[in-house]
Amino acid sequence: MDLKNKNIIINFEPISRRILLSSDKPLYDILSEISVPIRSVCGGLGTCGKCKLLIQKGKEFFIPPTSIEKKSIDQSELEYGWRLACQAKIDAIKCNLLEKTESLKIRIFLPNELLLEDFKILTGGMGKGVKRFPAIKKYYLSLDKPSLENPQADFERTVEKLKNSSKDFSNNAQFDIHFDLLKELPNILRNNKNKITLAIRNNKTIIACEPANTVEDNFGIAYDIGTTTIVGYLINLNNGKIYAVASNLNSQTAYGEDVITRITFIKDDKENLNVLNSAVVNDLNDILLKLCSKANVDPSRVYEASIVGNSVMHHIFLGLDPTNIGLSPYVPVIQKGLDIPSKKLNLNISKNGVAYIAPVISGFVGADTIGVILSSKIYNEKDLTLAIDIGTNGEIIIGNRKVLAVGSCAAGSALEGAHISNGMRAAGGAIDSLKINPKTLDVTFSTIIDKKPIGICGSGLVDAVAEMLKSKILTRSGNFNKELINHERIKKIGKTYEFVIAKKEETSLGKEITITQNDIRQIQMAKAAFYSGTRLILKSLGNNNRKIKQIFLAGAFGNYINAKNAKFIGMIPDIPDEKIYQIGNAAGIGAQYCLLNVKLRNKAEQLLKKTSYIEIAIKKEFQKEYAEAMYFPHLNLDYFPTLVEYRNIRKR
Amino acid sequence: MDLKNKNIIINFEPISRRILLSSDKPLYDILSEISVPIRSVCGGLGTCGKCKLLIQKGKEFFIPPTSIEKKSIDQSELEYGWRLACQAKIDAIKCNLLEKTESLKIRIFLPNELLLEDFKILTGGMGKGVKRFPAIKKYYLSLDKPSLENPQADFERTVEKLKNSSKDFSNNAQFDIHFDLLKELPNILRNNKNKITLAIRNNKTIIACEPANTVEDNFGIAYDIGTTTIVGYLINLNNGKIYAVASNLNSQTAYGEDVITRITFIKDDKENLNVLNSAVVNDLNDILLKLCSKANVDPSRVYEASIVGNSVMHHIFLGLDPTNIGLSPYVPVIQKGLDIPSKKLNLNISKNGVAYIAPVISGFVGADTIGVILSSKIYNEKDLTLAIDIGTNGEIIIGNRKVLAVGSCAAGSALEGAHISNGMRAAGGAIDSLKINPKTLDVTFSTIIDKKPIGICGSGLVDAVAEMLKSKILTRSGNFNKELINHERIKKIGKTYEFVIAKKEETSLGKEITITQNDIRQIQMAKAAFYSGTRLILKSLGNNNRKIKQIFLAGAFGNYINAKNAKFIGMIPDIPDEKIYQIGNAAGIGAQYCLLNVKLRNKAEQLLKKTSYIEIAIKKEFQKEYAEAMYFPHLNLDYFPTLVEYRNIRKR
Repeated sequence: MDLKNKNIIINFEPISRRILLSSDKPLYDILSEISVPIRSVCGGLGTCGKCKLLIQKGKEFFIPPTSIEKKSIDQSELEYGWRLACQAKIDAIKCNLLEKTESLKIRIFLPNELLLEDFKILTGGMGKGVKRFPAIKKYYLSLDKPSLENPQADFERTVEKLKNSSKDFSNNAQFDIHFDLLKELPNILRNNKNKITLAIRNNKTIIACEPANTVEDNFGIAYDIGTTTIVGYLINLNNGKIYAVASNLNSQTAYGEDVITRITFIKDDKENLNVLNSAVVNDLNDILLKLCSKANVDPSRVYEASIVGNSVMHHIFLGLDPTNIGLSPYVPVIQKGLDIPSKKLNLNISKNGVAYIAPVISGFVGADTIGVILSSKIYNEKDLTLAIDIGTNGEIIIGNRKVLAVGSCAAGSALEGAHISNGMRAAGGAIDSLKINPKTLDVTFSTIIDKKPIGICGSGLVDAVAEMLKSKILTRSGNFNKELINHERIKKIGKTYEFVIAKKEETSLGKEITITQNDIRQIQMAKAAFYSGTRLILKSLGNNNRKIKQIFLAGAFGNYINAKNAKFIGMIPDIPDEKIYQIGNAAGIGAQYCLLNVKLRNKAEQLLKKTSYIEIAIKKEFQKEYAEAMYFPHLNLDYFPTLVEYRNIRKR
Repeated sequence: MDLKNKNIIINFEPISRRILLSSDKPLYDILSEISVPIRSVCGGLGTCGKCKLLIQKGKEFFIPPTSIEKKSIDQSELEYGWRLACQAKIDAIKCNLLEKTESLKIRIFLPNELLLEDFKILTGGMGKGVKRFPAIKKYYLSLDKPSLENPQADFERTVEKLKNSSKDFSNNAQFDIHFDLLKELPNILRNNKNKITLAIRNNKTIIACEPANTVEDNFGIAYDIGTTTIVGYLINLNNGKIYAVASNLNSQTAYGEDVITRITFIKDDKENLNVLNSAVVNDLNDILLKLCSKANVDPSRVYEASIVGNSVMHHIFLGLDPTNIGLSPYVPVIQKGLDIPSKKLNLNISKNGVAYIAPVISGFVGADTIGVILSSKIYNEKDLTLAIDIGTNGEIIIGNRKVLAVGSCAAGSALEGAHISNGMRAAGGAIDSLKINPKTLDVTFSTIIDKKPIGICGSGLVDAVAEMLKSKILTRSGNFNKELINHERIKKIGKTYEFVIAKKEETSLGKEITITQNDIRQIQMAKAAFYSGTRLILKSLGNNNRKIKQIFLAGAFGNYINAKNAKFIGMIPDIPDEKIYQIGNAAGIGAQYCLLNVKLRNKAEQLLKKTSYIEIAIKKEFQKEYAEAMYFPHLNLDYFPTLVEYRNIRKR
């Protein structure tokens, strides 16, 4: 219905978009019309229940909740104003009753989870530095015209000039050229007075031939394809500088939160491999465009992409069927690193560009782990080092200059907020750190971008559990301490309890944010997986006296976590705090290193051969180790001698 | 008009196809309907005048010659029954007068020139033998199933087995796999109980992965793309045996007889490059199918193609613009040999197959010449050797183990029958050798496949000129000898003369076959081009004392020619007959060698660097040398001391 003659204004927050409503379409359509794309799995069909938003003001002018909304949203939330964007629309009949002079102001809050942008994705990190030795170099040449005395072919004439112009090449150097480019070479030469710039890969292959001098425009892109988020770095290969960083949600998330769900999706219908592949390729191309637009770079001047990702992301991105990764014995299609024409992968970099994708170690330890190993240089350490990369999947690396072993544990998703009652990713409004006053049990917290809280993210969860332990709200077995259950912040829900982190009036949800008994169990399982995994990998190294001397925490979660609290809950071994380093998005830095130094790609292949892969879950000690590690910090307190606080915490 | 109730039978000869006529369509359409494709440049539009055929019986039942036919065919020929297939059609009105019981028998002769098949294309030849060292080898593997103890990726598991199964590979051997094939590998393994055969290229790249044991099916194809004809050889790479040979007319001929016409065609409209490219690619694929059908081989088991051709054929086949070859300074796009995925070239061999195309030396000395050099091994000869390859273009090679120089002369097309009044290619019915009785001037001749003559081909022309000289019909300057012009076989046509080789009653043309003054001039120009080219290349080698010690005659013409007569007319230097070798289709053999021995491809690149290219026509002595060589055998008889017959032949 046309509402143009009415004065209905909608304010969309927190993006501060203000519109004059002109029709009674669903909010989903309206947002789409004003180019605020929101997250939806079903594309507005009402089947996924993911497009939740909050009508903070004017909810009485909307049509009543539909049966679809009633299925997805609790009655209390509906009453507060939570609606599905695809269902909620203005009630045109009510609005028609408004006088012409009357204005109606509506305020709608778009949760960060709903927005496709503005995520707090870890993009930075502490690399250990890398020598620049890029695969691509560019050369500007001014050729002589051919003559009857020297009627050399266009290709040979170009190559001869190249050899004579640079010390990079010996007299016997042999060159290739991309066949499609060869077809264009004669015209490029003749239309530009024989003045051209070549991009040469690995001192051998001409992959671009451009008019005039474009030597300075020599770019590469490094991608870290996470299960949930994708980060891209645009880097000038001539100087190693990062010109722009951008990130996206991995659009595959719409088809499954974790890798196993996505494998199942593909197993159900092989055509779905193309669906997921297109999703991630589009994400990569979106990031490319964002980066190039930020840095004012022509995407055709990006000649290489260097890519890391876990094994399933690796396979799906390459269009390789990951089904066998999901079935014992979890066999990938290929492990070694690959150079593939960007065209074959539909990457929109230079048309004769190349994508390098780092090797994968096993079905569950992927190219991202190779990235972590390369950027952390754990293989150069003297001391035995534990590196854990906590993303949607968790990887454990233990090694030094002599040994190197890796394992994987499916523990990351709880720490990203999945299966946690008020869990969310590290987005605006997430409680990311907190303290509990041990006397009053009052909670003080901080949120991301200081927004009123809407949930709790991984680092907040670790803090919450550690603080609940220190305040004796929890016992070492993870149960609520019966002595404190009468406190006003501890509520009984059925047979279990929950602890109120943020009261109803403190949140912008219209309800409180709590940690439930089940949330504690999820954290226990996650931390037990890491700790028992670490122990089993350590054991597999064969020398029982080996002790972890330092720890690298990598990945988004690893970076924002309170390392002391991670140690306190028994997720990582008890070593001095100053020996725990948060190394940021080490996988992404690994991708950057491989982009900047082609020799590291050979190093990656060596590491692939050198690294032992430990299948943790099939070890016979696994069940026992895992069960013992479920305790805070561990069944055996001797493993955590410095955590003296536990002397006063009940075991059960 | 419908003629089904009439009893009209057409016999098409020499193919012995008999049909009952059912309509009054043009013969062109009728032939097309019965799958006898005939040569036509214009596709039946009546503009090219090429689809000449002879109605030997029943011509009075056809419509009278059209104005189009009157333009293309002489009145006397029209009267004899020569018609254009696209114009001639039965006269339905006359046919309708036939009684129902009456039957009409028509006999139509299709000249060999008109048919697309059955050409006498030189496919064999005398190679000097080659060691087998093919790029492709096949290996049968029976792999272990993956297990939790050994969960290697499919690719790595395959490669490990390969290394362990053959001594061809070191422990450190690195392998690649075609990306598209990698996607298929998991299913190929799992659907075939892990029993597979790999085709490996250059000990490195897996280019095919086939169920079960297919080691014996390891084929390659060698192509010689001539301007006029294309020859293909299907070879088993395991044993070097030729399984089948097949040839086609080069369909590009429809767009221009020689390379210059085809370059012009492309220059007129760049889209025409695609037209010519598709034509030749289709020819190659047709030949592939013919070969595979003859030898009962699956085309997907043909993994490599090795290709030679002159520079323009090379460029067009690759889709490279040859325009600059047609313009001074005649610059090709590329000279070096190329390995190109067969898919990129639309060749229908194994989908991950590779096409190797030999290097070209210059705009007018192509990969076919490299083929001649490789197969003749002129670079190993102790004696200075002249090799000439006479196709539509002529190439001259002079060399031995120390020097190597090449040049090109546009002399071949006259020797293939072009611009010769009764000239034709070496097809059935061509006069290919002849003798003239010096006393009576009677001519005895032989024809190809012993058919009644319809024209004269290159070897017949050389014989004719040599015999006319020996019989003193011609003077050394190529004029008709005034003393003999009253002989019945010498006819005056306007101001010039012609010599009757075959009388009207001897031919199946309904007219005589003659050699005209202009024909003599064409031969003079061709032979002068070869001889003067040879002298200039010899001079360019810098040592005036160098003398040609042996001669290799290559190419179709080179093989069928009477070498003594070629020497007698002064086309090649005066050296002992036993030092003149006819080496057959040396270019094609070169392609076979490159297919069978990958090391020869490196040799080809070395030869490319070693070989001097001489631009004959820009040498300042060219005009003088050429003019002197126009005489039979030469202005300077001292160059041909053994040809004592010339003492009795007039100079002018």
